[in-house]
Amino acid sequence: MNAKASSASLIEIEHDAYRVPGVVQLTMNRPDAFNALSEALLDEMQNALTQIAASDARVVVIAGAGRAFCAGHDLKEMRATPSLAYYQRLFARCTKLMMTIQRLPQPVIARVQGIATAAGCQLVAMCDLAVAADSARFAVSGVNLGLFCATPSVPLSRNLSRKAALDMLLTGEFIDAAEAKHQGLVNRVVPADALDVELARLAATICAKPVEAVSAGKWLFYRQLEMGIEAAYQLAGQTMACNMMDDSALEGVQAFIDKRAPDWKR
Amino acid sequence: MNAKASSASLIEIEHDAYRVPGVVQLTMNRPDAFNALSEALLDEMQNALTQIAASDARVVVIAGAGRAFCAGHDLKEMRATPSLAYYQRLFARCTKLMMTIQRLPQPVIARVQGIATAAGCQLVAMCDLAVAADSARFAVSGVNLGLFCATPSVPLSRNLSRKAALDMLLTGEFIDAAEAKHQGLVNRVVPADALDVELARLAATICAKPVEAVSAGKWLFYRQLEMGIEAAYQLAGQTMACNMMDDSALEGVQAFIDKRAPDWKR
Amino acid sequence: MNAKASSASLIEIEHDAYRVPGVVQLTMNRPDAFNALSEALLDEMQNALTQIAASDARVVVIAGAGRAFCAGHDLKEMRATPSLAYYQRLFARCTKLMMTIQRLPQPVIARVQGIATAAGCQLVAMCDLAVAADSARFAVSGVNLGLFCATPSVPLSRNLSRKAALDMLLTGEFIDAAEAKHQGLVNRVVPADALDVELARLAATICAKPVEAVSAGKWLFYRQLEMGIEAAYQLAGQTMACNMMDDSALEGVQAFIDKRAPDWKR
Repeated sequence: MNAKASSASLIEIEHDAYRVPGVVQLTMNRPDAFNALSEALLDEMQNALTQIAASDARVVVIAGAGRAFCAGHDLKEMRATPSLAYYQRLFARCTKLMMTIQRLPQPVIARVQGIATAAGCQLVAMCDLAVAADSARFAVSGVNLGLFCATPSVPLSRNLSRKAALDMLLTGEFIDAAEAKHQGLVNRVVPADALDVELARLAATICAKPVEAVSAGKWLFYRQLEMGIEAAYQLAGQTMACNMMDDSALEGVQAFIDKRAPDWKR
Repeated sequence: MNAKASSASLIEIEHDAYRVPGVVQLTMNRPDAFNALSEALLDEMQNALTQIAASDARVVVIAGAGRAFCAGHDLKEMRATPSLAYYQRLFARCTKLMMTIQRLPQPVIARVQGIATAAGCQLVAMCDLAVAADSARFAVSGVNLGLFCATPSVPLSRNLSRKAALDMLLTGEFIDAAEAKHQGLVNRVVPADALDVELARLAATICAKPVEAVSAGKWLFYRQLEMGIEAAYQLAGQTMACNMMDDSALEGVQAFIDKRAPDWKR
Repeated sequence: MNAKASSASLIEIEHDAYRVPGVVQLTMNRPDAFNALSEALLDEMQNALTQIAASDARVVVIAGAGRAFCAGHDLKEMRATPSLAYYQRLFARCTKLMMTIQRLPQPVIARVQGIATAAGCQLVAMCDLAVAADSARFAVSGVNLGLFCATPSVPLSRNLSRKAALDMLLTGEFIDAAEAKHQGLVNRVVPADALDVELARLAATICAKPVEAVSAGKWLFYRQLEMGIEAAYQLAGQTMACNMMDDSALEGVQAFIDKRAPDWKR
């Protein structure tokens, strides 16, 4: 991967973003189309994430170029092929991308600077963390066109309380960034001009942790969420015992005992 | 169904409520008994909902006559037959009604103008959406009488965080409308004299969406909530592909592309 | 059990705490080690809870001596035996204690007067209820040492929204008491000097309810949470029918009808 992809890419890839080594920012780059998720864009993002999964990147930021974060699927493209088989393949492809985000060993942070609607709102919900400008707004507005945001409802209902999720899904109305934070859709809301400072801070904080703890921890987190509490504890105990045997954890704990900074070779 | 049922009914049925075509309001009509859910009232509401399910109604509002929304089961009636078999049948009947609400093709909105306690609070939790007057209050107060609100705990624990739900269940104490909104039990809180304006607005907003999207969407929402995320996505993708093939969605998306209002024949 | 255990105990046991008959307070008593959960302390707490389960205690409060509530596992002890088998046994033992709290017939309230970190934060999350001083702070900070708080993530992700839980787990940062209340980790936040008044009030409120309703209710609550909604309702209906046949419930409901206080022999 190059330090900067050509500006013709639908996904612009920036390494060491925010001047933090290990941070990769993927910027959806169709600003005139509100970064709508065309098939080509979905493919580029899938490819970028597949490469990142196998790389030594530490944190991924997903951003949008221009005024919108992402307006969801490319409706013109969708409407041009009115076929059940086509729509099934399209949503399967989008789902694959969403699950790739959750399965990525690296934490993925949404950088939400503008509106996030339909599958764009789904993208925010699927990211591990989300930082929003106070001017950002969120909706699952497909119902306004007669198309219920079914796939977005999957992560939305796993982020928000069910009545709040259903309200958005049935009315198609926007919520603002403060409400999104209150409801659990985003973690942090800052003034628009402080967005990059906050992202830099958050990404650098996570990059400072040993990679073994972060990747095993993210994996464990989503796995145990789908289990009963006893099975969840069994898996978590096994994960934590293995993690404790990592050199980084043994050194980190020893350094804590010795009241010194850990000496983690990178 | 008549436009107004006789005032002797335990459930008053009003069609085109709030002057919005397609809105049916069911008003529990035992104001002197705080709209307690007697067996006869449960039966009338079950019958009304069964008829609505097969009708072309678009949105259902559940309301209470008088000062209380609903005070739960009819304790005098319950106490008169101290029999395990009787209580099993009674709770099974109430559960059937609650599940009918969730399975109804139409969205169901609770209009909470006063106190909602025990199975009355359960009723609010089971509705898809809830709008409350700022003077409304909520409790699962059975424990005060030695009867833990077990069946109300099912939807309560699926609306609120678990510690907040357990607090209400173990103490029997009231929470006010603002706290109910904060916790996810209701969607919107307005001054009492603005309650009907807010309900009219919300019901009209949902009635303006194509019925296929709303009914398939509600069905999908509760189904996918009980699945692991991968199975949830598979079902949601299939649902959304089918929805996109509906004439209403094809027209809605085309109208969006053409920058015009959709022409939905009704 | 004695009214006061010797001060050499790692768990100090106080009966009729807050002058409320039936309330047992277990105080972690390693203030110089921020009440770290050494193996010996885990064993003492396990033994104390096993005795309480079979006793006529009504409510349990878990507290910490000194400035911290609990700083999690004893890292010096952990680091001294770098063995996978040892860590597996240690986390299994801790998990057993945590599940004992959830399975205890009595409600368990965390009294959080200071910091609660790692397994100390897990302990707060596992308690049925939690009351915190406004100066209390919470973190799952293992990741700072390279040890992801995997077992704490199990109850944390069942108390908080998933993005909020992941934020704490990946950054290791503290949240304050107000945020912990907002997120669902604690029920009530009061000024530090009002902590005991609030605990006394909450414990007394629960002690005033019939024991059958409270213990069957707590059991049902956690069981039904892990079921689909239909199975949950079936179990809840059965539990509630049985509870209604208890003398205490029949008397409680009759007293309500008669507009008098219930006559519950204790």
